[in-house]
Amino acid sequence: MTSQTLRRWLPAMDWLAGYNRQHAAQDLLAALVVTVLAIPQSLAYAMLAGLPPQMGLYASILPLVAYAWFGSSRTLSVGPVALLSLLMAAALGRIAAPGSEAYLVAGLVLTAMVGCLLIAMGILRLGWIVNYLSHPVISGFVTASALLISASQLSYLLGIQSAGDNLLQIIGSLVSQLPESSLPTLLVGLGMIALLYATRGRAQDLLQRLGVSPAWAAMAANAGPVIVVVVSIVIVLLWDHGRGSIRIVGSIPQSLPPLTIPSADPTLWRELLPSALIIALVGFVQSVSIARTLAAKRRERLIANRELIGLGAANLTAAFTGGLVVSGSFSRSVVNYDAGALTPMANIFSAIILAVTALFLTPLFFYLPEATLAAIIIVAVLSLVDWHAIQRTWLYSKADFAALAVTMVGVLLVGVEQGILAGVTVSIVLYLWRTSHPHIAMIGLMPGTEHFRNVRRHAVVASHRVLGIRIDESLYFANARYLEDAIYDEVLRQSAVEHVVLACGAINQIDSSALESLEGLMLRLADAGVKLHLSEVKGPVMDQLQRSQFLARLTGEVFLSQFQALETLDPTAVAHAQSTSIESKEIE
Amino acid sequence: MTSQTLRRWLPAMDWLAGYNRQHAAQDLLAALVVTVLAIPQSLAYAMLAGLPPQMGLYASILPLVAYAWFGSSRTLSVGPVALLSLLMAAALGRIAAPGSEAYLVAGLVLTAMVGCLLIAMGILRLGWIVNYLSHPVISGFVTASALLISASQLSYLLGIQSAGDNLLQIIGSLVSQLPESSLPTLLVGLGMIALLYATRGRAQDLLQRLGVSPAWAAMAANAGPVIVVVVSIVIVLLWDHGRGSIRIVGSIPQSLPPLTIPSADPTLWRELLPSALIIALVGFVQSVSIARTLAAKRRERLIANRELIGLGAANLTAAFTGGLVVSGSFSRSVVNYDAGALTPMANIFSAIILAVTALFLTPLFFYLPEATLAAIIIVAVLSLVDWHAIQRTWLYSKADFAALAVTMVGVLLVGVEQGILAGVTVSIVLYLWRTSHPHIAMIGLMPGTEHFRNVRRHAVVASHRVLGIRIDESLYFANARYLEDAIYDEVLRQSAVEHVVLACGAINQIDSSALESLEGLMLRLADAGVKLHLSEVKGPVMDQLQRSQFLARLTGEVFLSQFQALETLDPTAVAHAQSTSIESKEIE
Repeated sequence: MTSQTLRRWLPAMDWLAGYNRQHAAQDLLAALVVTVLAIPQSLAYAMLAGLPPQMGLYASILPLVAYAWFGSSRTLSVGPVALLSLLMAAALGRIAAPGSEAYLVAGLVLTAMVGCLLIAMGILRLGWIVNYLSHPVISGFVTASALLISASQLSYLLGIQSAGDNLLQIIGSLVSQLPESSLPTLLVGLGMIALLYATRGRAQDLLQRLGVSPAWAAMAANAGPVIVVVVSIVIVLLWDHGRGSIRIVGSIPQSLPPLTIPSADPTLWRELLPSALIIALVGFVQSVSIARTLAAKRRERLIANRELIGLGAANLTAAFTGGLVVSGSFSRSVVNYDAGALTPMANIFSAIILAVTALFLTPLFFYLPEATLAAIIIVAVLSLVDWHAIQRTWLYSKADFAALAVTMVGVLLVGVEQGILAGVTVSIVLYLWRTSHPHIAMIGLMPGTEHFRNVRRHAVVASHRVLGIRIDESLYFANARYLEDAIYDEVLRQSAVEHVVLACGAINQIDSSALESLEGLMLRLADAGVKLHLSEVKGPVMDQLQRSQFLARLTGEVFLSQFQALETLDPTAVAHAQSTSIESKEIE
Repeated sequence: MTSQTLRRWLPAMDWLAGYNRQHAAQDLLAALVVTVLAIPQSLAYAMLAGLPPQMGLYASILPLVAYAWFGSSRTLSVGPVALLSLLMAAALGRIAAPGSEAYLVAGLVLTAMVGCLLIAMGILRLGWIVNYLSHPVISGFVTASALLISASQLSYLLGIQSAGDNLLQIIGSLVSQLPESSLPTLLVGLGMIALLYATRGRAQDLLQRLGVSPAWAAMAANAGPVIVVVVSIVIVLLWDHGRGSIRIVGSIPQSLPPLTIPSADPTLWRELLPSALIIALVGFVQSVSIARTLAAKRRERLIANRELIGLGAANLTAAFTGGLVVSGSFSRSVVNYDAGALTPMANIFSAIILAVTALFLTPLFFYLPEATLAAIIIVAVLSLVDWHAIQRTWLYSKADFAALAVTMVGVLLVGVEQGILAGVTVSIVLYLWRTSHPHIAMIGLMPGTEHFRNVRRHAVVASHRVLGIRIDESLYFANARYLEDAIYDEVLRQSAVEHVVLACGAINQIDSSALESLEGLMLRLADAGVKLHLSEVKGPVMDQLQRSQFLARLTGEVFLSQFQALETLDPTAVAHAQSTSIESKEIE
């Protein structure tokens, strides 16, 4: 029992048991490849969050170990990611000026809070909350964020500073400083963007033609960031050394992650809470999406609530070791998987290599231009923009497109939190709107069968005395009155009707507003001399109706099937239908 | 064409056409009965709103004519009502002190705004908005309001002043002033409450035994307010005359409704907007509920959007003639109907009688104790408290009860608007929650039929190779991921499965998040060597799927029925089922 409890909270027990030398060799290889990519990304994403670059390295060391221990995905690569860094910058920018001591303090508090929220959600088993972020909202958010991040990175390409939460502010701030921009910086930045796209598009083909095996060629194509780091450092050394016309990263402290204690200032915690909540949710959505995609390929299981604990532990560790908010990285996870990582031990190996880097190798990055890091970020995030998905959504559903557009415009022009909240609200309102005007069909008997179909779509026989109505939605407050009126109006139109039979096969629940409306309808129909019957009521709905007085008061009966209802209430119509084979429509 | 357009906007054209002397006689009789009841109620409800009593009379004159002209109900009696007066008092109390000039100004603005909002909603055909106020929310709101109104009237019974938006404030203010309360006032108030309950409970029996016809006896029993007005005036004249120990209404100006122009101060309009919106919605709900109940009895039609115009016109008229917010009154409408009113002309007759009262008869009410008006209000609103309905809701659905309880506690302890908003939010969240964890059934073939049923509830034959799954809910963002995982997990559990067939008969829509999840599921299943099929897809859902790439990419097929699917994919299982008659459960 105890071992099972332990296993539940420490998923690492699952894979540590049978771990052997062959596993270790494969995991180590994957770790090496991933780490080469992780170093420039970590530096860049810390910078994107407005934090010193070494914090990105620290966030890629012990948090990885924490995730390896508590997380449930075997191949997810955890660390700083572009989206969350942008969200951090927006949240922290409202509290303090980037570069100030207060900004750093707030950064650690935010990271700790994200960790606490994720762990709390995991313990409370709230993994499902994430489902309320609909696909169009996430799609709109990712696209807008990518554009926003790219815009914010333009300042590094131009060698100037920019500020702002939304596109208008960022562009305004860029335009006002344009005269101070540095041409050499811009040239390096644009050159590196070109090089990144080139390695992406062509390198794989080229390497394969040079005889490199396809697997290695694909991996090398992912190494674009490493190539531009090396090339741009060489350029600075050869061309700009000493002149200082290209802004470089400069000295990064050589140190293992420090022990940092996040401030317990309650005002700060309260101020950062809304942002922390959004960051926790977005980070979780991103991680789960990636982890689930990879787990499916090997038919492994991913447990959302355990992922929450794993990510929470990683973020809490980051807060105590001078890091920033971490999540599952799309690019590194895919590389990790493709490089053959078998278990989270790859994450631990990666952490060790990064620790060595932090301790000994940071001087190598002294001459790295900031514009190169900006180029890496821009190319990475622009790959997240999926215009095709937006177009698909437009074709498939205008309502979903509306949610997407509201989110995108909100994120770009107002702010990330507001955009997401607006998108979620629109999603919910449009869903309620659609369910509040459900499809209602008058149904008639298909000659020669026991099946009932829509009288407007099929050649069926409808009784003059018995009106069959099928409702294609659960009955609840938002559609109860609409249905009550719609059915009553239909009866008013057909004066010969004596019985109304509701076919309830598509009704999955009836709430008490709908029950009240059904009773109201029944009484109005009774006043008009018409009886109300039900047919094909589902088991759970029947169970609930039995807890009310409705069935006792029902003027009509509850039939097992619509056919049985018609047979009982109007046998002549059934006989007529069984003897008929021509098209007959009695109700228009 | 023009006459039809006219008819659409002036429903009065419908009944004015054939109006004759016999109609007039019946309407006049009903008007007389209703007006006798309307006079004390109008005075009382104006007082409840913190306004001078004569404003209640003014609100019962021209607004009635406006409603008669534009409204669609034939028997609704319009005028000041307790609930809306309470809402007005809460809204205006936040702007100015009751009795001040600013309070009166705000009162007219609020009334005008309610009128404008209702008309705007009518023109925009927004009658459906009201459906989002679920039955439990209305029930909780009405009960809490009745308790709140009763508490606020206790001060008149005690002869003191009270203030406050919520129960705690009102009780606190009452307790602090308790030492100043007046025993004679309390005695009169309690006596009148007793008398009202007595006329209600016993009078009808008694009168019938005295030989009065049942119809007249019932009407007389409704005349309780008239009786207590007369009795209490006599008591004051005989016992208290000159001593002033019982607070009386005092002099009411003798005048026809004045012309009042609501202020156009934009700040005031903005401040009152949220309250105006709530009052407009609540007034509309109340009116429609009553009007629909009465219309049903005569099989008449009620058009929600026309009701909005009618009520809006009545409120706008009230704002320009020194009145207050009006709506359909429950008690007076029922009396009007029972007294035989045929057309809205009864409302016009009632307006004429009230105009005469306002002009000549207000001195009759000089000695009317305020405690009597309080007694009338308390007895009227307490009859709205329906503990039985609350108990029914508890039995029927805990989720609906939660919405009711939140609304009730919110209205009582925080405020009316906040309570209603909290209730609506809880209703929506609980609805989404229920639809986000839909019922999923593994289905198998009923031996000897073509029907499929839940394998856990019925003795059916399930194929080892083909997994049939029925989902009892539309697929949308809030349940898409849940279903994706639930189905995938089920497949993981059954290693022999080669085909999954989703029975889509209860699916009324698939949004783009759900489509993405279906595609994700399909790919995950494909990675595991399992094909995904659909069956029984409804017409509208199929139409929408055809606008996406999903059907083109589908690894399996779309079958017309689940039976056809099984027949195609695993004919042996079908043969086995058709030859079997014993109970066989293959999946636990």
